[in-house]
Amino acid sequence: MAFGWIDEQARARRRAGLVRTLRPRSADAPLLDLAGNDYLGLSRHPEVTEGAAEAARRWGGGSTGSRLVTGTTELHGELECELADFCGFEAALVFSSGYAANLAAVTALAPHGSLIVSDAGNHASLIDGCRLARGTTEVVAHADPRAVRKALGTHRGPAVVVSDTVFSVDGDAAPLAGLAEAVREFDAGLIVDDAHGLGLLGAGGRGAAYAAGLAGAPDVVATVTLSKSLGSQGGAVLGPAPVIDHLVNAARTFIFDTGLAPAAVGAALAALRLLRREPERAERARTVAATLHARLTAEGHEAVRPDAAVVSVRAPSPELAVRWAADCRAAGVAVGCFRPPSVPDGISRLRLTARADLTDGQIEHAVRVIGETRP
Amino acid sequence: MAFGWIDEQARARRRAGLVRTLRPRSADAPLLDLAGNDYLGLSRHPEVTEGAAEAARRWGGGSTGSRLVTGTTELHGELECELADFCGFEAALVFSSGYAANLAAVTALAPHGSLIVSDAGNHASLIDGCRLARGTTEVVAHADPRAVRKALGTHRGPAVVVSDTVFSVDGDAAPLAGLAEAVREFDAGLIVDDAHGLGLLGAGGRGAAYAAGLAGAPDVVATVTLSKSLGSQGGAVLGPAPVIDHLVNAARTFIFDTGLAPAAVGAALAALRLLRREPERAERARTVAATLHARLTAEGHEAVRPDAAVVSVRAPSPELAVRWAADCRAAGVAVGCFRPPSVPDGISRLRLTARADLTDGQIEHAVRVIGETRP
Repeated sequence: MAFGWIDEQARARRRAGLVRTLRPRSADAPLLDLAGNDYLGLSRHPEVTEGAAEAARRWGGGSTGSRLVTGTTELHGELECELADFCGFEAALVFSSGYAANLAAVTALAPHGSLIVSDAGNHASLIDGCRLARGTTEVVAHADPRAVRKALGTHRGPAVVVSDTVFSVDGDAAPLAGLAEAVREFDAGLIVDDAHGLGLLGAGGRGAAYAAGLAGAPDVVATVTLSKSLGSQGGAVLGPAPVIDHLVNAARTFIFDTGLAPAAVGAALAALRLLRREPERAERARTVAATLHARLTAEGHEAVRPDAAVVSVRAPSPELAVRWAADCRAAGVAVGCFRPPSVPDGISRLRLTARADLTDGQIEHAVRVIGETRP
Repeated sequence: MAFGWIDEQARARRRAGLVRTLRPRSADAPLLDLAGNDYLGLSRHPEVTEGAAEAARRWGGGSTGSRLVTGTTELHGELECELADFCGFEAALVFSSGYAANLAAVTALAPHGSLIVSDAGNHASLIDGCRLARGTTEVVAHADPRAVRKALGTHRGPAVVVSDTVFSVDGDAAPLAGLAEAVREFDAGLIVDDAHGLGLLGAGGRGAAYAAGLAGAPDVVATVTLSKSLGSQGGAVLGPAPVIDHLVNAARTFIFDTGLAPAAVGAALAALRLLRREPERAERARTVAATLHARLTAEGHEAVRPDAAVVSVRAPSPELAVRWAADCRAAGVAVGCFRPPSVPDGISRLRLTARADLTDGQIEHAVRVIGETRP
């Protein structure tokens, strides 16, 4: 049998308690959501959903082609201008996903003969970017500018350092100032994935690069997603105009992909304008995260102090993490459950996400349920 | 300068006449579109745009998370069921793009120690899938089952053959019957990318695998896009249920990507239902393509006979292809212009796409403009 080898892998997964299954949710599920990445609670905001609906009606259900053929509408241009301006970069380029944006940034900026220095905790999409790039990758210890400096010191020729700004699994922040210092010592470039920083860090949610004073620098490129704080779908690369022009000409996931659907562009644009108008949403999400962490720690849970809106709580084992998450869900609270192979260190955890629109009562309720269901 | 090496590449592109620039289009551009991939003319169909709008209002601007966390709605499930049923496969899995679906299918089905036999004309996303996969890739001559058989004969262990069903550049079809015979001789699997076949080939547009009697076979996996005939955004993998389960558990572009936005799911679902109700759209698009080809050939153009809806017309050089396409555009007709490095053979061409909703008068007008602007 052609795909017979799959069955043995499936049996091994079942034996190890690592089977993943899809659980479609209904539109009006009564669950309290601490699992999604809708950090600012904008995905269901009427201005955002109407932005999507209006864009679909005006521009169509899809963009109809590659961005270089028919897939760029004036709406894409508007979003790119406003996003670059908001985050403090010269230019922006929108992709169909953050995954595609990361593949594009890393592959196009790490040519043959170059070195990529990649943090050991980086997101799968950055890792796949490293694998696809023509340059050579050196994986360095997590959040360690000294290790970065050491790697850069061994190489002659173009080099880039690649890091998440806020790591998805534990919610900890990268040492951006130290990384910037390191790249400047060696004339390298810095690519940071701000998927979990945009909308949360920096003045009014302008992102981690902005907060670190790195936005707009000629040697810094940031990638963001439109699918988390901006409540939509898609991703973008932000950087100097020549870098963005280079991506238009060289990035395969830009050239050979259909442009982002107008509805997603419209939703992201509406969310961005909302965030500009209501910058307090960024701070509120961080406050909710800090409160969640403080209350869980007070109850004796082992939780990582959040640098943005992800609160990671250790679980004793993959099986118990799954049971814990399932018991939370049965009690009306949806939490994320991260376990091998989705975690870099093999440690299973509950992954809670703060949202700007959670009330203090909802936070208390969540903490109570998590405590009562603890394995 | 960190990214200084980019400037030299930009200069080389300018010298070679290969600079790509984005041209945002307006919502009411008076251009006759023979460049996009909206083969059935459904992207702006009111049922499709209303499907997008209604889904955004009901489910939100984004799916809020990975498909395995919060990113699977009942709407995703509906689309997966109806798509699998329509195309004749046991199960389907929806991705945020066709690119992501191809990366998933190839990487998850070509483990360490396996062989991937890949057609030389395959789409960039399949090629990137081969590069990311742990298996070893052997690129074989275009559309040549004998070369496939020869490659398979050299290998022991799991193997997959990977091919577009309709090649994007020239619009020619793969020899699916011959490929199927070859994989069965060697107990290998067959992965076909039906991006340009769904909605056009097979009874009522059920796709190339269906047309070849391969849909639902235990050794066949098809990928499709939702962004061409279905007028939306996204992609899907279709195959036996155990293969789809395997992707849920192993495909990185599924596990680590945000789920497709509800609006895109809603638009694709509305388009699929429309196609079921109006199966004549598939035949009409093929008739338009055949007419375009016949009329262009009669006028002395060198055009490839279309197997689906792409009509490729040779241009003398990259520079003249660009000028030809620009002159067509100035005369009100948008055509695609494919040139290095987006073409596998270095030959530049105009790429025309047939649409089911083009009138005979529009076809005549397009042929006239293409003739009058010929360099």
